[in-house]
Amino acid sequence: MSEIDLIRNLTADLAQDNSVVIGPGDDCALVDVNGTSVLLKTDAIVEGVHFTADTPPKKIGRKAIARPLSDIAAMGGRPSHAVVTVGLPEDFDETRLETIYRGASEMGEKNGTYIVGGETTRNPVLLISVSLIGHVETDRVLTRKGSRDGDAVFVTGELGGSIAGKHLDFDPRLAEAHWLAEQFEIHAMIDLSDGLADALQQVTVASRVGARVDADALPLHPQTVQWFQSIGVDPLTEALIRGDDYELLFTAPPSFRGRLSHVKKQVGNIAITPIGVITKEQTVVLRRNGTDVPIPNGFEHFSKPQPRR
Amino acid sequence: MSEIDLIRNLTADLAQDNSVVIGPGDDCALVDVNGTSVLLKTDAIVEGVHFTADTPPKKIGRKAIARPLSDIAAMGGRPSHAVVTVGLPEDFDETRLETIYRGASEMGEKNGTYIVGGETTRNPVLLISVSLIGHVETDRVLTRKGSRDGDAVFVTGELGGSIAGKHLDFDPRLAEAHWLAEQFEIHAMIDLSDGLADALQQVTVASRVGARVDADALPLHPQTVQWFQSIGVDPLTEALIRGDDYELLFTAPPSFRGRLSHVKKQVGNIAITPIGVITKEQTVVLRRNGTDVPIPNGFEHFSKPQPRR
Repeated sequence: MSEIDLIRNLTADLAQDNSVVIGPGDDCALVDVNGTSVLLKTDAIVEGVHFTADTPPKKIGRKAIARPLSDIAAMGGRPSHAVVTVGLPEDFDETRLETIYRGASEMGEKNGTYIVGGETTRNPVLLISVSLIGHVETDRVLTRKGSRDGDAVFVTGELGGSIAGKHLDFDPRLAEAHWLAEQFEIHAMIDLSDGLADALQQVTVASRVGARVDADALPLHPQTVQWFQSIGVDPLTEALIRGDDYELLFTAPPSFRGRLSHVKKQVGNIAITPIGVITKEQTVVLRRNGTDVPIPNGFEHFSKPQPRR
Repeated sequence: MSEIDLIRNLTADLAQDNSVVIGPGDDCALVDVNGTSVLLKTDAIVEGVHFTADTPPKKIGRKAIARPLSDIAAMGGRPSHAVVTVGLPEDFDETRLETIYRGASEMGEKNGTYIVGGETTRNPVLLISVSLIGHVETDRVLTRKGSRDGDAVFVTGELGGSIAGKHLDFDPRLAEAHWLAEQFEIHAMIDLSDGLADALQQVTVASRVGARVDADALPLHPQTVQWFQSIGVDPLTEALIRGDDYELLFTAPPSFRGRLSHVKKQVGNIAITPIGVITKEQTVVLRRNGTDVPIPNGFEHFSKPQPRR
């Protein structure tokens, strides 16, 4: 069973009340706390899965908080506060831990987010769990639902860069998401933490539509292309199924296609690329060399032998 | 270095802004989100540390959420929403995991708290990390600071019951905390998750006072007393240093001593017991058989050989 199916099963029958605006199943939850809409997200990274013993500690902390920040971005929200739980092995290095914390704190502060609490517990390997809260008005929130037949599909930045180290250095697309939400009519948004194929799957299932993506339009990370070609692997497939991209995918009316292709300079010099269209038929296909092929599923933590980074 | 010192070091220099009403160092953080004061807490339990492979899965889930609920209680807050991250070993049992989730969800619902998001990750052992949010008005929040010379010190319920299994069955003292906060002038409050000795230490350090506790006044859990006596261990010491009690300790003007001794029936049939006084001299002592002896430090995760439950 994939992680997504597992979580869906676990959270399917959970009790909810009417303070829950958006429950399990989107990038973040959105809840009402005393009249204010609060975004809530939790995420953990583990040594040997998301980073290694050799990863610079500052980058571990950076990644630990940047991942849930990316989820807040995907909802169009503004993150504000974080709490951090660290699982520590017996022989943990205190200086390394302090540097991890500093990395997380600096990355948080850069994005208007302050660490307000910490806990530690014993764990066989280093684990960092970050929970974030933030704010978005209920009528401005961006979700995975809402894509419509004929929408153009866009992505920010470049795809497949995680193999070149981007998974430790990415900037969550908060400013870009806010800019897009203010300027355009965004129908659905999601982050690419689990890869493009998975994101397309999530958006189309939630919106009850399909998608056709143009292979030639995908903005592949140049270093990644080179690397995969050098080992004889199709870079396109890798860019589709590889997670850890932390770019945004969104859909908007087709009329925005022309306008959004020229906005790079306005959104932090991040390219925004139209990569396909939303279709009525509920399948996700890749148009490559004139043929439509079904897109493989996204990266699945529990169905792939290799560790996820 | 103790867990408390470690966390204090890690969080000492973290950047904060003026949206942070209470930062690291109390039972919960209190922050301002778009004009609403939000309590935020994270906590994790790990197999082999806080529960065993034999612990009934429902009780694991129950404990995972009840622990941070107890922290919200200690701030006088009302919990509302939770997110849960589960670290899973390769060979995890899906049914066990579902039951853990159900245990957490039921315990949450019983206390007005809904699970709105979940994540899973690989981890060598089962780990459940729960983050909670809740609400309390900024001018009604209860903290560890504020104890004054001459205050009476009270605890709810019985002490030292964790060894008899209470650490898997406790009810967070939310209703009791609200009732107390409404009826009385509470100067400081904390939960006993790390034991009475630790709680006294935290409150007196935060409030810059000391405390003298009366050994004869401590409401020891009868089964625990019997058990420790049977193995030749002083039950009083155990009740002081053993964590996992999840009762509340609070201090209030001495005039409340008489009134609070008779309120059992009004607060869910939980006894409230005066156990000592706050002193000007900044030491924590136990009066036993007419002599004052310094109280040993509370349970420290990183300075004790035995696992914490």
